[in-house]
Amino acid sequence: MGRDFPITSPSNPRIKRLLKLRKSRDRRRDGVFLAEGLREVERAFAAGLQLEELYVCPALLGGQRVAAEAAQRFEVTEAILNKAAYRDDPEGVLAVVRQPEHSLADLPIGDLWLIAVGTEKPGNLGAMVRTAAAAGCAGVLATGPVDVFNPNAIRASTGAVFSLPVVEAEDEAIIAWCRKRDLRLIAATPEGGLPYQQVSYQRAAIVIGPEDKGLDDRWLAAAEQRVTIPMAAGVVDSLNAAATAAVLLFEARNWYGGQKR
Amino acid sequence: MGRDFPITSPSNPRIKRLLKLRKSRDRRRDGVFLAEGLREVERAFAAGLQLEELYVCPALLGGQRVAAEAAQRFEVTEAILNKAAYRDDPEGVLAVVRQPEHSLADLPIGDLWLIAVGTEKPGNLGAMVRTAAAAGCAGVLATGPVDVFNPNAIRASTGAVFSLPVVEAEDEAIIAWCRKRDLRLIAATPEGGLPYQQVSYQRAAIVIGPEDKGLDDRWLAAAEQRVTIPMAAGVVDSLNAAATAAVLLFEARNWYGGQKR
Repeated sequence: MGRDFPITSPSNPRIKRLLKLRKSRDRRRDGVFLAEGLREVERAFAAGLQLEELYVCPALLGGQRVAAEAAQRFEVTEAILNKAAYRDDPEGVLAVVRQPEHSLADLPIGDLWLIAVGTEKPGNLGAMVRTAAAAGCAGVLATGPVDVFNPNAIRASTGAVFSLPVVEAEDEAIIAWCRKRDLRLIAATPEGGLPYQQVSYQRAAIVIGPEDKGLDDRWLAAAEQRVTIPMAAGVVDSLNAAATAAVLLFEARNWYGGQKR
Repeated sequence: MGRDFPITSPSNPRIKRLLKLRKSRDRRRDGVFLAEGLREVERAFAAGLQLEELYVCPALLGGQRVAAEAAQRFEVTEAILNKAAYRDDPEGVLAVVRQPEHSLADLPIGDLWLIAVGTEKPGNLGAMVRTAAAAGCAGVLATGPVDVFNPNAIRASTGAVFSLPVVEAEDEAIIAWCRKRDLRLIAATPEGGLPYQQVSYQRAAIVIGPEDKGLDDRWLAAAEQRVTIPMAAGVVDSLNAAATAAVLLFEARNWYGGQKR
């Protein structure tokens, strides 16, 4: 544990850096992310992640203890904590946490994976990581602009991004990794694929595209199997990406007899 | 079609009222909602809803035609359109639309329903309505504070709230309606229910509770069946409400052999 002393000035260099970490680019450069609120900070700590700095505001915490230890701990004013936080309710605690380092080379063995291609919103990616964890996926591979350590992604994942391996990589690198691992790419398409109840999920990487545009030709061509969720006629023409992932991943989990993990 | 003349002042009485319609209370009082953007406005029109007022900004529309007719049509400046819109990208068009009037008494016949209890966020409710439509539900019953005609709910539903009957009512009224219709209440619980693959979905109303607190004792006691989605151990302790709805509703659709609708 480090020192406890109150920081009151927003021009303090630590606070200036903290504010910068609201930007994805700065988080990536430093290899860290922000955890906000009691539950999130405690889950990051419980998951074994390294908390570099812990910022607490006793006035906001109102006597609640933070069950997490950090290399350095600082007290800050309510104004500073709220300014540094991304969300409206940081609950008096904020942590700078080292990002877990996963790469394609060191991912665990596993028979079921989710590949999120070009997911538009961080919250959707976080929700899909949560669902992937619940369905027993060994990990998630993500391509595209969205940062899985965006505060909205972390929140929507309810901390699943702390434990489940999530790797961001280029499309071609992910496809090559699947070939090497002998995983079959199963690409979700709104129409024209095999009905999802008739698909084999043996050693499967389920590929979910961006909501508006769907998967591009590269992914459709690379896939061993295209799969479609038949829908009721009329009212809507597609499911959202997170709902598609939920239906397919739990169908795959059933295919494995619920024995994964 | 009404008159075309440009409104330039934010103190114009129509614009003042338009701004008020950003509030749920004012929308309910007037029985209308706001549709924003080309796709949403055109879908509301195509669904047969009554467009009372259409606000267009030619500069923002950039020559695109709005395939929708309204009782009255007004041109407005970019500043006014952006001020009146809830979202960041209203695309130069905004409509005041009469809410479809559904009540428990006039809902259609149907064997599969979704009951959303105390859903916290409008976007989640909208996503669930979209999923319910895709799964072939006859309609959605909602209790709790969330307004299904909130702009975020409409957007997440991709217009499903325009076509699928959605009724907001009190818990007891919904339970009584299900009894009268001989529908079985199937309540989703994170643990302790029958595995969802073993449940009969004959004449089913699937009840999804609020994410943080889950269903209260009243709903659990009223349910003919409690159902649980078995999850992989460890990383997360529950699915989010929309993912739970997706897995259960498509399991129910499979149970019916995909024949609904």
